[in-house]
Amino acid sequence: MGTLACRLMLERPDLEIVGAISHQDGQDLGRAVGLGKDLGITIHSDPDKVLGKVAADIMLLMTHMFTKEVFPEIMRAVGNGLSVITTAEEMGYPHVQEPELARKMDEAAKAKGVAILGTGVNPGFSLDKFIISLLSVCHKVERVYASRVNDLSPYGSSVMRLHGVGLTPEEYLESVKAGTVVGHVGFRESISMIADSLGWKLDRITESRTPIVTTVPRSTPHISVVPGRAAGGNQSGHGFMHGKEVITLEHPQEIRPELQGVKVQDCVRIEGLPEINLTITPEIAGGYATSGICVNMIHVLLRAKPGLRNMREMPLMGAPIGGFVS
Amino acid sequence: MGTLACRLMLERPDLEIVGAISHQDGQDLGRAVGLGKDLGITIHSDPDKVLGKVAADIMLLMTHMFTKEVFPEIMRAVGNGLSVITTAEEMGYPHVQEPELARKMDEAAKAKGVAILGTGVNPGFSLDKFIISLLSVCHKVERVYASRVNDLSPYGSSVMRLHGVGLTPEEYLESVKAGTVVGHVGFRESISMIADSLGWKLDRITESRTPIVTTVPRSTPHISVVPGRAAGGNQSGHGFMHGKEVITLEHPQEIRPELQGVKVQDCVRIEGLPEINLTITPEIAGGYATSGICVNMIHVLLRAKPGLRNMREMPLMGAPIGGFVS
Repeated sequence: MGTLACRLMLERPDLEIVGAISHQDGQDLGRAVGLGKDLGITIHSDPDKVLGKVAADIMLLMTHMFTKEVFPEIMRAVGNGLSVITTAEEMGYPHVQEPELARKMDEAAKAKGVAILGTGVNPGFSLDKFIISLLSVCHKVERVYASRVNDLSPYGSSVMRLHGVGLTPEEYLESVKAGTVVGHVGFRESISMIADSLGWKLDRITESRTPIVTTVPRSTPHISVVPGRAAGGNQSGHGFMHGKEVITLEHPQEIRPELQGVKVQDCVRIEGLPEINLTITPEIAGGYATSGICVNMIHVLLRAKPGLRNMREMPLMGAPIGGFVS
Repeated sequence: MGTLACRLMLERPDLEIVGAISHQDGQDLGRAVGLGKDLGITIHSDPDKVLGKVAADIMLLMTHMFTKEVFPEIMRAVGNGLSVITTAEEMGYPHVQEPELARKMDEAAKAKGVAILGTGVNPGFSLDKFIISLLSVCHKVERVYASRVNDLSPYGSSVMRLHGVGLTPEEYLESVKAGTVVGHVGFRESISMIADSLGWKLDRITESRTPIVTTVPRSTPHISVVPGRAAGGNQSGHGFMHGKEVITLEHPQEIRPELQGVKVQDCVRIEGLPEINLTITPEIAGGYATSGICVNMIHVLLRAKPGLRNMREMPLMGAPIGGFVS
């Protein structure tokens, strides 16, 4: 994801990369992202060799999933006067699970006059902000249903482990309980963001994760799965109000879904006035979309009010490929 | 449209109607919008009997199509310290066709600390802001194509005249030239908004309007059209950059499209990285969506920077049906 974002930023006349932090310590950034040439920017694994040493407006932080994991790095960047955009999923609406850390980040950012934003394709777009955009034309909303069906095949071994690909059904369910199969993180954030956009006070949010057990052999360059084992997982989030399920988000993720006739797509169905039935086929490609929205939000965030921001309140202003029009 | 917006506002706990201007002078607003009871709000046809007489934050102006038509009414409201949301199509991106009037409105609004916004389903959403929202995930964009296919059947005689329904093909084309068949207004505004969101400098924008000649009889409660005459019009806008068509917006509008197998829908196709192919079936209902987005943008506009605003820069924050969450 960091490589995709770097390559996009390098093509953009309105953006300049001045430093890079990654485990590829000592490498030139151009080589590391596959440009085949040096850029004169040396990657450091020690953040202190970059933060405070280069004049920058913003840091893109494209690691980790949970707020508590990225909190120290965000606070260090903010302390150095940088705004931050992060793909850490919980940061999509961080006060939901980490109100105290969210408060601290908000205060620190305000004190330094910078802004912090969690975004990505999901959370950040497909299952929240994009739906909220559609809700903006509605008179009444009875129920929001959305699904994002994508293909895990392009991803490597760490994603396979996170999604329990290759496990027996029993192992999958145990690993979900143990927290080693995490799958998609963000249902609570997306559901809360949608509910807030409707002024809805939910009773509760639940999540479900069950294995997608393949009945045919499935292989990718990274893994082979035999029949009877998990090709991925059915994952969903459910928001209830007055005891009724009013928000349903489904996000099944598996390798080679086409082998069992599963069609990759994004769907949104809003039951209300007007009704809205929307399909995007195939689904919006997650890798490009996540790196794209992070880079495209840079100018928007730099002009936003200081503090901890979120996608619910941020305008989607396009991709200023040919230069930013203010 | 005004009736739909009034009825929505009356249902919303976060909004209060304090005055009404319309030709139905002397009527009670509740009766006029079909509530079957009085609300204690008397409609005045003279704006001076309302503006400056009631304490209000914002005026919704749901008449006219062109900026020069609504300019005096907007300036009067702004002069009285009110923000304004208007459905006048050209106001969707008013500096495109009326830079001088746009400048004056911007200055007046800033001087009074209020904001002005043109919105609606189109311009304002389907063929611009909604597309821009999708562009926010893109790395590259080669071409933007969108179409909105809707049904004119629900509309009355004034809309039939504006769209040339019932004319011979020759009459239709002559009336387009003469400016009496206007059809959809907003292609230039929507195309400019999309181009600005991509930092594209277009060479030119063209528009096309040709009759949809029916081969079967078509009737609505308001009009009957015999074969050989216009059931509506094919309308499109085209944006060119470096001589190549890069933005295409199609918006055919006709009565009873289903009688000749035409499917109402909204489509967006973004050729780029990632590719996006989206369909909304049926199309988002225009009457509800226009009145809905006007009402839903009230709180957003009241918190925006003073001046003449536009949908490109405004966040879509949902429909705060159950109360506004800040």
